[in-house]
Amino acid sequence: MTNPLRVTITGAAGQIAYSLLFRIAAGQVFGPKQPVILQMLEIAPAMAALEGTAMELQDCAFPLLHEMVLTDDPLAGFDAANWAFLVGAFPRKAGMDRADLIGRNGPIFVGQGQAINARAADDFHCLVVGNPANTNALIAMSNAPDVPRERFNAMTRLDHNRSLSQLADKTGANVGDVKQMIIWGNHSNTMVPDIYHAKIGRKKAINAVGKRWYKKYFKPTVASRGGAIIKARGASSAASAANAAIDHVRDWHSGSRKGDWVSMAVPSDGSYGAPEGVIFSVPCVCPGDGTYQIVQGLDVNEEIQEGIRKTGEELLSEKVVVVDLL
Amino acid sequence: MTNPLRVTITGAAGQIAYSLLFRIAAGQVFGPKQPVILQMLEIAPAMAALEGTAMELQDCAFPLLHEMVLTDDPLAGFDAANWAFLVGAFPRKAGMDRADLIGRNGPIFVGQGQAINARAADDFHCLVVGNPANTNALIAMSNAPDVPRERFNAMTRLDHNRSLSQLADKTGANVGDVKQMIIWGNHSNTMVPDIYHAKIGRKKAINAVGKRWYKKYFKPTVASRGGAIIKARGASSAASAANAAIDHVRDWHSGSRKGDWVSMAVPSDGSYGAPEGVIFSVPCVCPGDGTYQIVQGLDVNEEIQEGIRKTGEELLSEKVVVVDLL
Repeated sequence: MTNPLRVTITGAAGQIAYSLLFRIAAGQVFGPKQPVILQMLEIAPAMAALEGTAMELQDCAFPLLHEMVLTDDPLAGFDAANWAFLVGAFPRKAGMDRADLIGRNGPIFVGQGQAINARAADDFHCLVVGNPANTNALIAMSNAPDVPRERFNAMTRLDHNRSLSQLADKTGANVGDVKQMIIWGNHSNTMVPDIYHAKIGRKKAINAVGKRWYKKYFKPTVASRGGAIIKARGASSAASAANAAIDHVRDWHSGSRKGDWVSMAVPSDGSYGAPEGVIFSVPCVCPGDGTYQIVQGLDVNEEIQEGIRKTGEELLSEKVVVVDLL
Repeated sequence: MTNPLRVTITGAAGQIAYSLLFRIAAGQVFGPKQPVILQMLEIAPAMAALEGTAMELQDCAFPLLHEMVLTDDPLAGFDAANWAFLVGAFPRKAGMDRADLIGRNGPIFVGQGQAINARAADDFHCLVVGNPANTNALIAMSNAPDVPRERFNAMTRLDHNRSLSQLADKTGANVGDVKQMIIWGNHSNTMVPDIYHAKIGRKKAINAVGKRWYKKYFKPTVASRGGAIIKARGASSAASAANAAIDHVRDWHSGSRKGDWVSMAVPSDGSYGAPEGVIFSVPCVCPGDGTYQIVQGLDVNEEIQEGIRKTGEELLSEKVVVVDLL
């Protein structure tokens, strides 16, 4: 019997976790033969609701789900954790600007970073989903100095997947035939969805859809997609965000698709002119051993370079807000 | 390329469907190589919310999801459908008794049965999840006379899975080692969870847990589990119900586990003293070709026989309420 992986999920009683937990327990992230222990972290007021989620997980009789831990203590939540999904974050409320949001979330990720540093397993990896994801990941990473930096990622896979779908929809292709999409930078309005390298089957995507459509329709659609879903559903994206988190961690753990790459926000090494010292989304290939490599040597045009500069500046300005927490 | 299966989901903007649709599109029901077309049926007032769910499905970039149909017309919803999950039903409200609920839901399933008869594919199969599931399935089946009766099932798999988990929890076993559980009869308070044939590893479950625990704790816990979850979550079971529907249809489509059986509410053939002419939960084995066989020759004790008699009577009394719809 394979030893179970300990998987921590924060914000475990929330809507994204409700879509995420059952798919992890069903084997969709770590594979159909890998048992898991779900370590579910919440804030104290949400523990009763978390109990309900745990009862439903139990009621699924998942053979791979070996144990559940329900806690509001980060030290217990990250104890011996191998992988983590940091989903929980303080939501943006009316009247808050991005700096307020960053300031409000900072302390949460300080505490979680410290708990990770104190308690997580040697092979710990984590994906930050809770917004502002890049800067939250930076804070957690900075407060876990004993954990290799590259083990902290933030999620831009939902933007990546949305982009694939928009390209498929426009051209009538199957979404599985769309490849080599890139999301650059911050998971925010400044992110840069770059289709100049993308292919649809054997065709270049930019030729298939045209530059005008890319600029006038695609970029605004991808950027405003979250708001459009809130308008239609009356609630923010949950299942699609959970699915993107599943895709990110599954690929990181088990390998990304051959002949393609994925967008992952990772500690910047300065590639492509991104500032160092921030968590920046870049194209990555995952060999399947829990590592990733940034795809190098791509020819980036001036339009995209300018976008990379702007989204990098935003990340640096977010870093200034939280500098005392790093 | 394998031809896509057309899969109809009713109540597609609801909470159970929200947990179900993404897992179907991810390949968890029909397998990782089987493309699907999701035909999502809702009532007119829910079409805007359904649009939001569809946007999120699109945003997942599922390679297996070849097409989506959003409709409030049952004829379009069941057009050429190969499989269906009948999830939508009028919910029980304060002051309604079971007969009111049955009466309110009957016409919905008349219309869906007629649409299935008129439009579904020759290999159509369906699972009724919406309550009262057994009688709703009977109504749909009766209004689709050209479809073989055994293609209409109702769901007792959630009760079955809950029972497996309770036995595992009590004995400290892995839930995957619990086998040969049976839910008999109606998905209602009269259902009979029978552990007399169940095994935990190589041990008889009844010996491992004791008859007193079975009667005093297990039966009431399984029977009242839905209410306990509503109390904890502030909402009824959704992800666990969706998971049970996935388990039921996956096993029916691709085969149940060797050396075990599953509980499925199927058109009664009179086995085990169940009345004929109703949809009755029995232990079944699925060979993996879209058929099932009722497990025969089990020795059923007097206690269980009495339970089978009572739940059968309830189903017959429900049938009286809807006799004009059959």
